[in-house]
Amino acid sequence: MTTPLNLRQLSTASPEFEAEFQRVLHWSAETDAAIETRVAEILADVRARGDAAVLEYTARFDGVSAEQLGALELTREELNAAFEAITLAQRQALEAAAARVRSYHEKQKAACGQSWSYRDEDGTLLGQKVTPLDRVGIYVPGGKAAYPSSVLMNAIPAQVAGVPEIVMVVPTPRGEKNPLVLAAAYVAGVHRAFTIGGAQAVAALAYGTATVPRVDKITGPGNAYVASAKKHVFGQVGIDMIAGPSEILVLADGTTPPDWVAMDLFSQAEHDELAQSLLLCPDADYIARVRESIERLLPTMPRAAVIRASLEGRGALIQTRSMDEACSISNRIAPEHLEVSSREPHRWEPLLRHAGAIFLGAYTSESLGDYCAGPNHVLPTSGTARFSSPLGVYDFQKRSSLIEVSEAGAQVLGPIAAELAYGEGLQGHARAAEMRLRR
Amino acid sequence: MTTPLNLRQLSTASPEFEAEFQRVLHWSAETDAAIETRVAEILADVRARGDAAVLEYTARFDGVSAEQLGALELTREELNAAFEAITLAQRQALEAAAARVRSYHEKQKAACGQSWSYRDEDGTLLGQKVTPLDRVGIYVPGGKAAYPSSVLMNAIPAQVAGVPEIVMVVPTPRGEKNPLVLAAAYVAGVHRAFTIGGAQAVAALAYGTATVPRVDKITGPGNAYVASAKKHVFGQVGIDMIAGPSEILVLADGTTPPDWVAMDLFSQAEHDELAQSLLLCPDADYIARVRESIERLLPTMPRAAVIRASLEGRGALIQTRSMDEACSISNRIAPEHLEVSSREPHRWEPLLRHAGAIFLGAYTSESLGDYCAGPNHVLPTSGTARFSSPLGVYDFQKRSSLIEVSEAGAQVLGPIAAELAYGEGLQGHARAAEMRLRR
Repeated sequence: MTTPLNLRQLSTASPEFEAEFQRVLHWSAETDAAIETRVAEILADVRARGDAAVLEYTARFDGVSAEQLGALELTREELNAAFEAITLAQRQALEAAAARVRSYHEKQKAACGQSWSYRDEDGTLLGQKVTPLDRVGIYVPGGKAAYPSSVLMNAIPAQVAGVPEIVMVVPTPRGEKNPLVLAAAYVAGVHRAFTIGGAQAVAALAYGTATVPRVDKITGPGNAYVASAKKHVFGQVGIDMIAGPSEILVLADGTTPPDWVAMDLFSQAEHDELAQSLLLCPDADYIARVRESIERLLPTMPRAAVIRASLEGRGALIQTRSMDEACSISNRIAPEHLEVSSREPHRWEPLLRHAGAIFLGAYTSESLGDYCAGPNHVLPTSGTARFSSPLGVYDFQKRSSLIEVSEAGAQVLGPIAAELAYGEGLQGHARAAEMRLRR
Repeated sequence: MTTPLNLRQLSTASPEFEAEFQRVLHWSAETDAAIETRVAEILADVRARGDAAVLEYTARFDGVSAEQLGALELTREELNAAFEAITLAQRQALEAAAARVRSYHEKQKAACGQSWSYRDEDGTLLGQKVTPLDRVGIYVPGGKAAYPSSVLMNAIPAQVAGVPEIVMVVPTPRGEKNPLVLAAAYVAGVHRAFTIGGAQAVAALAYGTATVPRVDKITGPGNAYVASAKKHVFGQVGIDMIAGPSEILVLADGTTPPDWVAMDLFSQAEHDELAQSLLLCPDADYIARVRESIERLLPTMPRAAVIRASLEGRGALIQTRSMDEACSISNRIAPEHLEVSSREPHRWEPLLRHAGAIFLGAYTSESLGDYCAGPNHVLPTSGTARFSSPLGVYDFQKRSSLIEVSEAGAQVLGPIAAELAYGEGLQGHARAAEMRLRR
């Protein structure tokens, strides 16, 4: 006999709702001061000693020794061999997923990653030039969170953006290489790969060493050391977001088979104990049916212990007064993954302002989006969808403003600029504008 | 008699070039540990005590006392009164600049800030929804770097993005309000404004207090305390870049009047002693003429002392072998402002990969772009143009992926997702996909 599942249930009609809701939302991103200090030391050491420091930390933390850092580079042949060694079904799945992810990101580049310019009535040209980054680094975790899908999701947008050199780092604790990760690197077209990880790999990418080239931006998930290292080197290089625990919010109108919703909640909870799975629904009977599905299906899951810990620690079933209210609560949460499990997803979608990805309709399980629908699975967590976006082609491009003021334009703009510059006490600015005026 | 100007001159043909060039480029963004600690305390205090803490720090640091934080809010009437009190020429210049900046950012929104979607052959919908942030905070420095133009450059893109609430903070040391800054806030359509500053203002915006609403993103320049505070709250809220000293690089083919180039170099150097002004040119005679202009014009500048310190400390005139070589050196520098002061700017522009803004042709002085050409003057500094972009409408929008998998699409995607999910040991993901398969 198993222990009953202690999954909390809230109702927006309850006077305690607000306080309970705050407890559900609470998650502290406090960083460990000891980790911060250790990471700062590792970064400084790699910056000073380069290859030698990276080799020492790799031997110490991963149990992987080499005479030269070059020996830890994976050749294109090794990546190819890994691809050949996996099953045919795995090869086909990786290639199908890569093709769809590539196609979506090509559409994204066409929609929002193009240079543009125009001329005003004075013949002055204004616009923006969009160019790819020269070189990017992709961090891929080793160990239990080694996800080949993350290799595709990080490398393909960079490749579509036109980045000429994509450098992957992936730790291989005790020398264990994950063949699916290597195969994904092959499929995604990673240019160089090193079996290094941790803060030392982030430092090598940010500062460059004799062997590891300095990159312009580092993306990809990692443990607390990697996250802290990325935050430290931010400014020196670009970084993507610092990811918190993964979350799903299912907004249900009661028309989806309850087992489907239960499994979607599991698919988030199984990531780790801190992952969060929430259900918002106005129908109490339906919530009870989902709970029944959860209780029935949980013992059948290989990762039942992790799922239970996640659901009990951070999960909740929330009864709302209406779907409208559910939408407004969803906006307060700004979830990473938002499933609109409804017969009328397009009725609710316009009300949903903040989410990393919105999955519309009963057939759109989050897991389809995680692997192969096409959009990126690297999404803003912990409410940061209020102000940030999925990883995309735009993260591997940057923009330069273009301005070409015509002689006629300079006559119009000069006096305006000079007036404002004198007002700010910047006479050099004013006189540079005035010099372009016809006498 | 004045001391001769000690402005360094380099030549790429010299064997010492690489070492000298590295010295010119060197700039350390090291943060002061004492400031970091002090800022962390202020942030924690404001988070814990809200209004009361903000009031105390404002009294202590700015010499401005009030019983209630609400008393430090500027009303719309006060902003309007400031606008009415400045000169007609200033009003007209502010409005003309605002109109041009607005027009450019509207073009930018149309070019790269629109939602998009498509359906694949299975009827599956894929796309991205672009929405404005709910509320943003704009930091405006007080004191010597109080620039009304910065108010326009931060607030207008937010307004064009559709942000419904723009909250400005501006310290007023000893109660001194800058009428041009207040007038600019009026013109730019800032919704609320508080006369608070420093780390305490950043904390109030990031965490919210009883009086200051919590925002989703904070943009705008500030001193070391403000920069440190922004870095600390990054993640809690979005931030724009952390700006270093301002820089200009003039790439000259020798066809622009030397006085114009000299004044353009001054217009950067006059910002502060750490600002950097560089000239790259293949023509030694022309470099000599620019140097002569600099020496002749410098004594005529009200900010001559600052300009001299900047030019001697961080400036350089660099002779290159060719314009092509000048372009490639410019790419290594990735300057904030890049003037292509040439008769053939469109010949060189395609070779220039990294720059915040590119000013094409002799009439395009940087100062025209700083105030009123239209593009934003908030640009990536210190080489960060390698991976980041001018402030823009996109900084005040975020994207949500949209996915609606059709029933037919789920049959195609399900097996792919399941194969990859089992490969990653995530059975919940796999089964969620499999449940959507027809029996």
